[in-house]
Amino acid sequence: QGILERLDAGEIVIGDGGFVFALEKRGYVKAGPWTPEATVEHPEAVRQLHREFLRAGSNVLQTFTFYASEDKLENRGNYVAEKISCQKVNEAACDIAREVANEGDALVAGGVSQTPSYLSCKDKAEVKAAFRKQLDVFMKKNVDFLIAEYFEHVEEAVWAVEVLKESGKPVAATMCIGPEGDMHGVPPGQCAVQLVKAGASVVGVNCHFDPDTCLETVKRMKEGLQAAKLKAHLMSQPLAFHTPDCGKQGFIDLPEFPFGLEPRIVTRWDIQNYARKAYDLGIRYIGGCCGFEPYHIRAIAEELAPERGFLPEASEKHGSWGDGLSMHTKPWVRARARKEYWENLKPASGRPYCPSMSKPDGWGVTKGARELMQQKEATSEQQLKELFQKQK
Amino acid sequence: QGILERLDAGEIVIGDGGFVFALEKRGYVKAGPWTPEATVEHPEAVRQLHREFLRAGSNVLQTFTFYASEDKLENRGNYVAEKISCQKVNEAACDIAREVANEGDALVAGGVSQTPSYLSCKDKAEVKAAFRKQLDVFMKKNVDFLIAEYFEHVEEAVWAVEVLKESGKPVAATMCIGPEGDMHGVPPGQCAVQLVKAGASVVGVNCHFDPDTCLETVKRMKEGLQAAKLKAHLMSQPLAFHTPDCGKQGFIDLPEFPFGLEPRIVTRWDIQNYARKAYDLGIRYIGGCCGFEPYHIRAIAEELAPERGFLPEASEKHGSWGDGLSMHTKPWVRARARKEYWENLKPASGRPYCPSMSKPDGWGVTKGARELMQQKEATSEQQLKELFQKQK
Amino acid sequence: QGILERLDAGEIVIGDGGFVFALEKRGYVKAGPWTPEATVEHPEAVRQLHREFLRAGSNVLQTFTFYASEDKLENRGNYVAEKISCQKVNEAACDIAREVANEGDALVAGGVSQTPSYLSCKDKAEVKAAFRKQLDVFMKKNVDFLIAEYFEHVEEAVWAVEVLKESGKPVAATMCIGPEGDMHGVPPGQCAVQLVKAGASVVGVNCHFDPDTCLETVKRMKEGLQAAKLKAHLMSQPLAFHTPDCGKQGFIDLPEFPFGLEPRIVTRWDIQNYARKAYDLGIRYIGGCCGFEPYHIRAIAEELAPERGFLPEASEKHGSWGDGLSMHTKPWVRARARKEYWENLKPASGRPYCPSMSKPDGWGVTKGARELMQQKEATSEQQLKELFQKQK
Amino acid sequence: QGILERLDAGEIVIGDGGFVFALEKRGYVKAGPWTPEATVEHPEAVRQLHREFLRAGSNVLQTFTFYASEDKLENRGNYVAEKISCQKVNEAACDIAREVANEGDALVAGGVSQTPSYLSCKDKAEVKAAFRKQLDVFMKKNVDFLIAEYFEHVEEAVWAVEVLKESGKPVAATMCIGPEGDMHGVPPGQCAVQLVKAGASVVGVNCHFDPDTCLETVKRMKEGLQAAKLKAHLMSQPLAFHTPDCGKQGFIDLPEFPFGLEPRIVTRWDIQNYARKAYDLGIRYIGGCCGFEPYHIRAIAEELAPERGFLPEASEKHGSWGDGLSMHTKPWVRARARKEYWENLKPASGRPYCPSMSKPDGWGVTKGARELMQQKEATSEQQLKELFQKQK
Repeated sequence: QGILERLDAGEIVIGDGGFVFALEKRGYVKAGPWTPEATVEHPEAVRQLHREFLRAGSNVLQTFTFYASEDKLENRGNYVAEKISCQKVNEAACDIAREVANEGDALVAGGVSQTPSYLSCKDKAEVKAAFRKQLDVFMKKNVDFLIAEYFEHVEEAVWAVEVLKESGKPVAATMCIGPEGDMHGVPPGQCAVQLVKAGASVVGVNCHFDPDTCLETVKRMKEGLQAAKLKAHLMSQPLAFHTPDCGKQGFIDLPEFPFGLEPRIVTRWDIQNYARKAYDLGIRYIGGCCGFEPYHIRAIAEELAPERGFLPEASEKHGSWGDGLSMHTKPWVRARARKEYWENLKPASGRPYCPSMSKPDGWGVTKGARELMQQKEATSEQQLKELFQKQK
Repeated sequence: QGILERLDAGEIVIGDGGFVFALEKRGYVKAGPWTPEATVEHPEAVRQLHREFLRAGSNVLQTFTFYASEDKLENRGNYVAEKISCQKVNEAACDIAREVANEGDALVAGGVSQTPSYLSCKDKAEVKAAFRKQLDVFMKKNVDFLIAEYFEHVEEAVWAVEVLKESGKPVAATMCIGPEGDMHGVPPGQCAVQLVKAGASVVGVNCHFDPDTCLETVKRMKEGLQAAKLKAHLMSQPLAFHTPDCGKQGFIDLPEFPFGLEPRIVTRWDIQNYARKAYDLGIRYIGGCCGFEPYHIRAIAEELAPERGFLPEASEKHGSWGDGLSMHTKPWVRARARKEYWENLKPASGRPYCPSMSKPDGWGVTKGARELMQQKEATSEQQLKELFQKQK
Repeated sequence: QGILERLDAGEIVIGDGGFVFALEKRGYVKAGPWTPEATVEHPEAVRQLHREFLRAGSNVLQTFTFYASEDKLENRGNYVAEKISCQKVNEAACDIAREVANEGDALVAGGVSQTPSYLSCKDKAEVKAAFRKQLDVFMKKNVDFLIAEYFEHVEEAVWAVEVLKESGKPVAATMCIGPEGDMHGVPPGQCAVQLVKAGASVVGVNCHFDPDTCLETVKRMKEGLQAAKLKAHLMSQPLAFHTPDCGKQGFIDLPEFPFGLEPRIVTRWDIQNYARKAYDLGIRYIGGCCGFEPYHIRAIAEELAPERGFLPEASEKHGSWGDGLSMHTKPWVRARARKEYWENLKPASGRPYCPSMSKPDGWGVTKGARELMQQKEATSEQQLKELFQKQK
Repeated sequence: QGILERLDAGEIVIGDGGFVFALEKRGYVKAGPWTPEATVEHPEAVRQLHREFLRAGSNVLQTFTFYASEDKLENRGNYVAEKISCQKVNEAACDIAREVANEGDALVAGGVSQTPSYLSCKDKAEVKAAFRKQLDVFMKKNVDFLIAEYFEHVEEAVWAVEVLKESGKPVAATMCIGPEGDMHGVPPGQCAVQLVKAGASVVGVNCHFDPDTCLETVKRMKEGLQAAKLKAHLMSQPLAFHTPDCGKQGFIDLPEFPFGLEPRIVTRWDIQNYARKAYDLGIRYIGGCCGFEPYHIRAIAEELAPERGFLPEASEKHGSWGDGLSMHTKPWVRARARKEYWENLKPASGRPYCPSMSKPDGWGVTKGARELMQQKEATSEQQLKELFQKQK
């Protein structure tokens, strides 16, 4: 059964978690470039992570092709000695995902994401060509459906959807925006409308914000679609970090990004709460992005097990609401083997010299840059960089 | 070169990280029993984790035999349908560790840990028999050396060392105690003396406390050995969680254990700080325990690269002090590509409704139980349990 | 010179601080009723507090007549043995304020505040009669001008202004509302317009929210007046507590109100920051409400000393930006005698078991009650109480 | 009845609160010098504060003669135009305290504190002469008993007690030290022994640390006296600030001292907890120091009302455990009118950008200076200052 058959039938589809962050911690992705050459260099590591998400309950395995457009991969030349072609990275990603998907009942989704070409103001044809190059691989490898994800500008996301729709396969589209909308100020509801009109059957958000904020954004997308009398399935793949203190551009601008985010990592109970709220909001494609480890995905599957009628495989190694602790030798630890305990716990950080909130970097600069972009004066990335430096 | 040759030559030996916590998050270990049947059930997952630690810089791969004594594994009967024998679990653990060790330059260490038999007051012969059963496997599989780790009572640790010494192989011994000493009140210095007298060539601590607390404990061990004019190498494998608010029994008693510890996870920079302090204290076997992921081990290897003269393999995917960010498109993110930034960052938790410290559970109870044990009145685990329940 | 002459000439007028909170801590006002019978019972305590504000720089001494309407004072019967008449309380308040005002260059303002009669839905005539009874005293005692303050409903505030205008004296009107507007949902801009149309020459906010929130509310009032092409002076008298986590009804609903607010108390440096921002926003009547102690008022006067050309009397006992510390024997304390130090300090709470934010009580209930009031179904306080109890 | 008659009879004696901090906020004392010339300049302000403490339950009114030794008062010359003699300040302090004491049932205690002469290493005779000058005034004004308080060095405290004992009046002695002991490393137990041997009938601590820390110090004093088989009454007058993060020299070294301590201010409930613990420890002279406002003293009197059989006068304006809120119109505020609520509240700071703990300043420097003093190399304050500057 394809993605649309499942969603149309009212099924809950569970997505997977964040590859670049998980593999960075495992030693296979470099923070900064965040590119996925590990599909060629260390396929066993990528395969194992897919397998863990599958066991945790993922119904979709996304090809590890984040930032795998040719223009982006070229940036990585400076740290990988041997040149690996864009095509090889994308092909290997498809092969690995399919291999693991076949171990269970999962779909393979080919994914594209925002390009440096767009930011440096190349034209529509050039940006679309980049997406098309990845799509060619996805078609050759016959993925089950396509995802355009991690777009900050709805304009570029629409271009991506238009390219992906050429394939005839179902297309999902998620933006990495918050309730305030995209970087040009287009509100979420309007973004959703444009994406559906361009051909997306599933719309929503991924990355950049914590679960609560993402749900608020999807809620606004839903309202926008309703107002426009358009139909689409809703999708949500947030961060697994608490980020109530983010500005418009999300966690990138937090001072802790990306090497000091640990105290913000969400617990499995935070995720159960998120899964329930997402379900109640009408979202049926529920997954995660950066920070989501396999146990976070398992928490989605466990929270929604009553609705779905089954637990994921990995739940054989997890007691519901901590009941594995009922075997503990200490009675006060056994007392934690219950839902009320974990639902109400306010976990301490163990960091008495740290604050609970940060002030995001870069606001003044961002505003300046945004205005410039709106005035069409930022015609190249170089110009933008100079502006930034001057304003610093 | 064996472990003692390396340490005697003044080399830094980097340990590995925490298997039960990492594999719980990946879906292969159940919290509560924390037993390692995954070596048989899912060898590929165990193999991959070993490989990640190897890439991160580990010079020792510990067999995944934590809590793999026969008496402990019997507890797991209630959730694993198919019975897996103690011997099979230990053998598979040795095979996997050796296979990965051969991919690089690492030693294999066979490990034993505290037993339920000791806590339920079985006699010395019975407890030693349990260790001997694991040792038989380690000898058959010809591990490079042996580790007795995670002991709360020095008496049991001494028994373990005595058994392991029968093999003729080098023995390291670490206790999961803090600066206050073991559960019977034996101070760290005295614990170290007893372990060395029993035959351990390397002594130190693992688990239960954060890096700073563990270093304080090892410091007291060092002082105890000096006062007794004994020589031994020092070893430290702490938690990767901030736990300044722990009581005597460590993080088990924190309300967040084990499913709400996320905000306490240490950053890579915390670990670089730990590695430097450990080195300055004269510790030369430096590793980690619960919470340590591959990137934490890599942080040890990177901090001590000047002393060792080389970086670990996984550093090809990691810029020193965040320099991978120098390629970022946002200037304020590029500004984070420097040591001073990350060294001085006080990371926010993003949790404004949570405190920074917790009060540990179970103190009154613990004290009562400990007194009882000292009075030899708690002759069985059952009796102890009843006592606990009455006191609750 | 009267209040309007001063404001019209562009002078900064500094208000005074919060009497009920300060006198509660000194032992003369009871939390709960918060009534001002101390003017009769302990005039020396009220006089001393006025004098401290005068020394700190206050240009206006408000009569201590908060909650001194007859209907409110009747509530206090249950804890004050000897009955004190509403008239005596108001008269004594005027006498004390005038006596101290004559010690310096200050105006006396007679003040009225919201009434229980309004909340229990008595009619306009009855509510106005309550204000008129206080006004009679103010006229007899010849106060310099009048303030209608602490109103949650603009309707009642307008009635108050209408009564006070009968006197012919200048009238200032401040509401205890946040940026979301009054309890019936009237936004701040519209509240300001109604108050000015009713006759107020000065409008703004007092109490219920912290300085930053109050300034945001006054900003919206200013915009409302500009849009309506109305002219009025602006006034701000916020709490001296940090309350970023307040809901619509302000600090009353915070769990810490009123006996656990200590960790929220603002520093003198917070107040200097507030005074500067208020000035930059065009506010020229700048004072404080609950929590403001004399040293907070002094901080306003010191921050704006460059604009005003003089320091308050109490500054003889205060070095600018901590320079009194330059005489300290410890060099690291002397190092605190500078502006940058105090401006950038993020003061610790010394409370590692406490969170930084609270969730306000009573939202569901409040919403229910508000809806009910809007539906005109809550015809008496009794009915409202029953509703509350049912909803709890 | 004198102080000793009361204590010998087992009565609880309630002290007063902190004058310099309270009067600094009211505008009559300058932070830095902290000298009490207000007794001459603004007697009405000093009188009113005494009166508030009396109403709150104080049985002792200490003359406001803190830092009123001649050598200290000379420092203030640079900011008070008109020279006020040491004798006048001390005399006025006695007169005001006596006048208010006569309004109720309180004793007047003449107080001396540490001198700059001692710190600059003047000899014993010179330091004693300074105390004797103040004592002459106390004898002339016939105070009821004497207190030597706020000493960091037991040697100087002993000299003070010796001088005060010349009067024949009872002497109490409190040091501003923590559990680690005085600045030369004399532990609390030994300090207490020396003070009692010098003639003190009451010993304990005041200032510098929070209630919990002070109680720990007094506990050690008690144990020291018991070990030495000496008898004395115990006394405790801590800060009203939470300072768990203090170093050896107390709150002076916290970065927040003295102008950013607001978030550390203790609640009335913290004080009730302190009063109960102090009583349980056998302390019978229970008061406060810096930060203690009248309502904090009232909290001591209310907590111990069952033992004493009466409430203080100011309790007519305070409901036990918040019961004044039972009259509030909002039901969720009424729900706060109970002991369990306030006892268990963990008050939020409203400061999400601030940490909960600070690192004290000046440690290295302090250690260097202390060593120097011990080596008798720091023969003058000037030399010490130069040392500090070099080490900075």
